[in-house]
Amino acid sequence: MKVIPSIAQWRAEYSQLKKEDFQCKIGFVPTMGYLHDGHLSLVKEARKECDVVVMSIFVNPLQFGENEDFDRYPRDLERDKALAREHGVDYLFVPDVNEMYPQHPLTSVSVSTITEVMCGASRPGHFTGVATVVTKLFNIIQPDYAYFGLKDAQQVAVIQQMVKDLNIPVTIKPCPIVREKDGLAMSSRNVYLSEEERKQALYLYKSLREAKALVEGGERNTDRIKTRMENMLRSQPLIEIDYIDIRSFPELKSLESLHGLKGQVIVAVAVKIGRTRLIDNVIIDMEGGN
Amino acid sequence: MKVIPSIAQWRAEYSQLKKEDFQCKIGFVPTMGYLHDGHLSLVKEARKECDVVVMSIFVNPLQFGENEDFDRYPRDLERDKALAREHGVDYLFVPDVNEMYPQHPLTSVSVSTITEVMCGASRPGHFTGVATVVTKLFNIIQPDYAYFGLKDAQQVAVIQQMVKDLNIPVTIKPCPIVREKDGLAMSSRNVYLSEEERKQALYLYKSLREAKALVEGGERNTDRIKTRMENMLRSQPLIEIDYIDIRSFPELKSLESLHGLKGQVIVAVAVKIGRTRLIDNVIIDMEGGN
Repeated sequence: MKVIPSIAQWRAEYSQLKKEDFQCKIGFVPTMGYLHDGHLSLVKEARKECDVVVMSIFVNPLQFGENEDFDRYPRDLERDKALAREHGVDYLFVPDVNEMYPQHPLTSVSVSTITEVMCGASRPGHFTGVATVVTKLFNIIQPDYAYFGLKDAQQVAVIQQMVKDLNIPVTIKPCPIVREKDGLAMSSRNVYLSEEERKQALYLYKSLREAKALVEGGERNTDRIKTRMENMLRSQPLIEIDYIDIRSFPELKSLESLHGLKGQVIVAVAVKIGRTRLIDNVIIDMEGGN
Repeated sequence: MKVIPSIAQWRAEYSQLKKEDFQCKIGFVPTMGYLHDGHLSLVKEARKECDVVVMSIFVNPLQFGENEDFDRYPRDLERDKALAREHGVDYLFVPDVNEMYPQHPLTSVSVSTITEVMCGASRPGHFTGVATVVTKLFNIIQPDYAYFGLKDAQQVAVIQQMVKDLNIPVTIKPCPIVREKDGLAMSSRNVYLSEEERKQALYLYKSLREAKALVEGGERNTDRIKTRMENMLRSQPLIEIDYIDIRSFPELKSLESLHGLKGQVIVAVAVKIGRTRLIDNVIIDMEGGN
């Protein structure tokens, strides 16, 4: 595995790879590091489908709000390098902030509408930061495929919309959420949780499973589903609910009723437990409508 | 010359070209058609430096304001095809609006600060429309070099900033303004002008030459230069001044004095003559400061 700190160095590697075989497929796994099995499942998927696997580790200041956790976001580059190498990453792109933003940037990529709900409503500017840095990373890495975890389902929706709207020559591969044995969705931020917080955090997925069971049992009124979830989450005193939402996926259109719906529905939840913000979701396939 | 109406068709051509020779250089000349010698000078430059020359013709609705001339913008595809072929264009990309915007786009690329002055102040949203469509065209064509005329000097500054900020893998080649024998900067919009309007339009370049002569003669006070230009333009009754501006180039920073300045200075003017908006500029090299 080659560790690549500079854009110029990757561009040279890229030219060499494509010169030797223009059709070699480059798979890209963008991350903010502090790798867990969720990230590594993306690498595994990329490894299956691509000739070359590039992972990036970059904690992007642009996508953190002023009172968010940019400074204390967990970092451990040596451990990440070992994990990436072990799982078959060919190139680890690790630019520093100065390499990515050598001067104050004036340009931003923004996606409207679908960024105004859910996490976008709670984190103004977040998705513009994401869309801008992902555009930059795509322009640098020039991958054929890019792998994103569905824990950040809204991020996947935003990036797919951006890729379509801007004709970016990359195929987005959304990958399923990876969970701990007890159901907690893997996240680098889980390390922030105390033992008691960790225990109460299980109610995110519990409430989502309950929602899924209700839908599968025939419930079509989204308010009733949300109320049931809310009651479950409120039973945990350390949980402060940010939102509970049920929307079409990936359009993120608000749904009062699931009646007659085709396609996919996302049930999503965001909470604060202590200082830690956690999100989770389930995507339900409504198939032929019902 | 191949005429390419669809994105998929160009992508197939592109893959073929790069598969045969990954290092073949693709030069791109984006236009809105109704070609004149300004456009053709860009083709000539691209022809010199590149193996393959792609021109696009697309009148982009996104960069026109509501009360602007999108509907009546001059179009003559058959004439454009003949001219492009004659001047050595290899591929003419001519998507229709539906090909470029198959659904309502949610994504935009915007550049701050340098788009808030000059034409950006008079045409809100214009440069976001430009930045967004140029990003799309770059993602579609994937050129090595892209050629832009300096008549739209602010556009060149915006695109260069965007390419740098977003790490777009393309080199921007700004090319000098091409003028009619009498000094009028070539523009597709010149066709709108009546004989009398055409005559008064010559005062744009006259006032710019006067500004340049003043600077070369040692004048360093930008207000005095602007006043002289204003007086010249005001002598023409059909001219309505939009702005006269003197700024650093390409940073577009406001300048009260040119004293001690290094680098380039742009003197730019925008006017309306009847219903027609015209712009022109000169860029002065201040060299060692003075």
